[in-house]
Amino acid sequence: MNIKINENFKNIKESYLFSDIAKKVKAYQEAHKDAKVIRLGIGDVTLPLPKIVSDAMVKAAHEMSVKETFRGYPPEYGYDFLKDAVSDYYKRNGIEVLSGDIFISDGAKSDLGNIVDILGDNDIYIPDPVYPVYVDSNLMSGRKIHLINGCKENNFLPMPDGLDCNGGVIYLCSPNNPTGALYNFEELTAWVNFALKTGSLIIYDSAYEAFINGDYPRSIYAIEGAKECAIEINSLSKVAGFTGTRCGWTVVPKSLMVGDVSLNKLWSRRQATKFNGVSYPVQRAAEAALSVEGMAECKKNIEYYMENAKMLSELFKEKNIYFTGGINSPYIWLKCPNNMSSWEFFDYLLEKANIVGTPGAGFGAAGEGYFRITSFGTHEATKEAVERLRKLL
Amino acid sequence: MNIKINENFKNIKESYLFSDIAKKVKAYQEAHKDAKVIRLGIGDVTLPLPKIVSDAMVKAAHEMSVKETFRGYPPEYGYDFLKDAVSDYYKRNGIEVLSGDIFISDGAKSDLGNIVDILGDNDIYIPDPVYPVYVDSNLMSGRKIHLINGCKENNFLPMPDGLDCNGGVIYLCSPNNPTGALYNFEELTAWVNFALKTGSLIIYDSAYEAFINGDYPRSIYAIEGAKECAIEINSLSKVAGFTGTRCGWTVVPKSLMVGDVSLNKLWSRRQATKFNGVSYPVQRAAEAALSVEGMAECKKNIEYYMENAKMLSELFKEKNIYFTGGINSPYIWLKCPNNMSSWEFFDYLLEKANIVGTPGAGFGAAGEGYFRITSFGTHEATKEAVERLRKLL
Repeated sequence: MNIKINENFKNIKESYLFSDIAKKVKAYQEAHKDAKVIRLGIGDVTLPLPKIVSDAMVKAAHEMSVKETFRGYPPEYGYDFLKDAVSDYYKRNGIEVLSGDIFISDGAKSDLGNIVDILGDNDIYIPDPVYPVYVDSNLMSGRKIHLINGCKENNFLPMPDGLDCNGGVIYLCSPNNPTGALYNFEELTAWVNFALKTGSLIIYDSAYEAFINGDYPRSIYAIEGAKECAIEINSLSKVAGFTGTRCGWTVVPKSLMVGDVSLNKLWSRRQATKFNGVSYPVQRAAEAALSVEGMAECKKNIEYYMENAKMLSELFKEKNIYFTGGINSPYIWLKCPNNMSSWEFFDYLLEKANIVGTPGAGFGAAGEGYFRITSFGTHEATKEAVERLRKLL
Repeated sequence: MNIKINENFKNIKESYLFSDIAKKVKAYQEAHKDAKVIRLGIGDVTLPLPKIVSDAMVKAAHEMSVKETFRGYPPEYGYDFLKDAVSDYYKRNGIEVLSGDIFISDGAKSDLGNIVDILGDNDIYIPDPVYPVYVDSNLMSGRKIHLINGCKENNFLPMPDGLDCNGGVIYLCSPNNPTGALYNFEELTAWVNFALKTGSLIIYDSAYEAFINGDYPRSIYAIEGAKECAIEINSLSKVAGFTGTRCGWTVVPKSLMVGDVSLNKLWSRRQATKFNGVSYPVQRAAEAALSVEGMAECKKNIEYYMENAKMLSELFKEKNIYFTGGINSPYIWLKCPNNMSSWEFFDYLLEKANIVGTPGAGFGAAGEGYFRITSFGTHEATKEAVERLRKLL
């Protein structure tokens, strides 16, 4: 054909990290039919939806077959009942977010990817290691990316000190994927102040906030001034086990202005043009998950995963292996033993203990020599994995 | 803030056509509390989902609460069971589309909007009048748009003859929204041959194909050579009443190549980065709708709407008003009587007959002087509308 493609696609890897891992594991499993492989790689949940949540979805699915209760096109930005539930969820966590600033989405990944649509050719600042979507979506748009180095010295919590920035777009994720590290109030305040000072926009990924159990900010809007400099994107995937149900939200405060242009209006226009809202039964399920009763059930699931995180953390402490996360976060990010590279350790674990994790190098150059293990498995599998690791390491 | 926004947003209207209409109708209704307004404006369905479809969704929603049947992340491109159901649906209509070329989406609007991500700075050819998403999504990317004029003389079926094109992206929609006009085999073959000759890519919107009852192509792939030049985007919104359930699909044949770059691979990469798949219960509902039994039920709903279309068409024939559509299409596109402009006729209908339609000018300059009426209302409301129109016109 005689058309032009988006040439920026040539700058990204052809396949996605987790596809590569799946291929390796499949090949291993085929060569070793009897191996009982334990998967602690991808961050997918394993516990079913709380009954109160699935009941709400069942009820709404049934409503769709009855003339009087059938619903056609949903509002592009989400039903008021769900935006109000999100606003109320924030309120219970001591944070004010207005319903009119909330956009319901089919998950954080879509909005994290699509948000580039409303932005121009800015300098982009992204911590390394990081969730690959921030980097890939910006590479696809041909943006200039500056990586902010996470390392053992800063406990994988890079700060803005010394960052050469005259206004740009800064991605933050806390608790972080993949490192499980999280900013405290003082540190996040420093980021917000830096953004305000330089006129930068923060895109804040709070997908893991529900795992926070201590005195840490659960939203960037817990920090003064954030409504003048930050968009927050959240997901029910980990909070409420929605990886297969698909719902999340994005907050674009009306106070975010670039000159006389409102980012809230730009995002409204983008969504009205390229999105048609989230399935009605899914929105009812999300409403139920965010209710007081629903969230109490979701919390039980989170506690279940955090027991796994504890089992794993204690082992790594026992073995004197440096790690971040495991508290206030479902991820554990460890230094590969014996100076192995990330992929060497991946192969070593797979072959010697039949355990699958994620090579840190897959999250960026600064992840080399590190490894991510998730707590989203079952108690039984995690316990078994801990036993195998105790013998091996 | 000191960042750059996407300046192309300044070239599109701040609000969406249907938001403007909703505002006008609301104001009228507030000033005339007793008026019984009949809404034949927006193309939203009114009949509930067939029971076989909602039952499938209910069952899957229930599965999500049971450990053994719970599902986490869906495949980004859709479950095989649904891709196979789509492939089988094509097969029953005499068309071969391979499961591996199909991408399941949350609706046609998302994919029609997002497809621009994989394309470069091409010349864009769009029929006028047209579904506003083609124009707006390309304006947002700063593309150069050439409108192809639809008019009474070509029965709102513009053809490529004389089009100055050296390779570009061509949008086609048949049966068309808003005009209801549709290409026959010969005409669509001419478009495919033109695309092949000029090296152009056709983006074919087949959202209304299930309304075709005569000998017209229901897919661009019914035309020889289309797999070398066309992407097809379809939706279950009108086919199966999924406007509130949200599911559709996009076909990107592996044979679509730009040099050595496969468009299928580019779209795969785009979706894996910026999308996380469609809700599992929704995919089960879609599978049920596309089954032989499900489609038989959906067909009954389509026939119901087509009876409305018939009532309306007969009235306009009786009144000697020029129109397209109404057969093989849920839309009727009529010439405003007495040379009224589109918005004049909108006000006239609203005030004199309390009927809401859509001004043709909202679909592009070539729509001025025309008006769209949908057949998606109830029989009762449509009958009442016909009576009012009979008296008024």
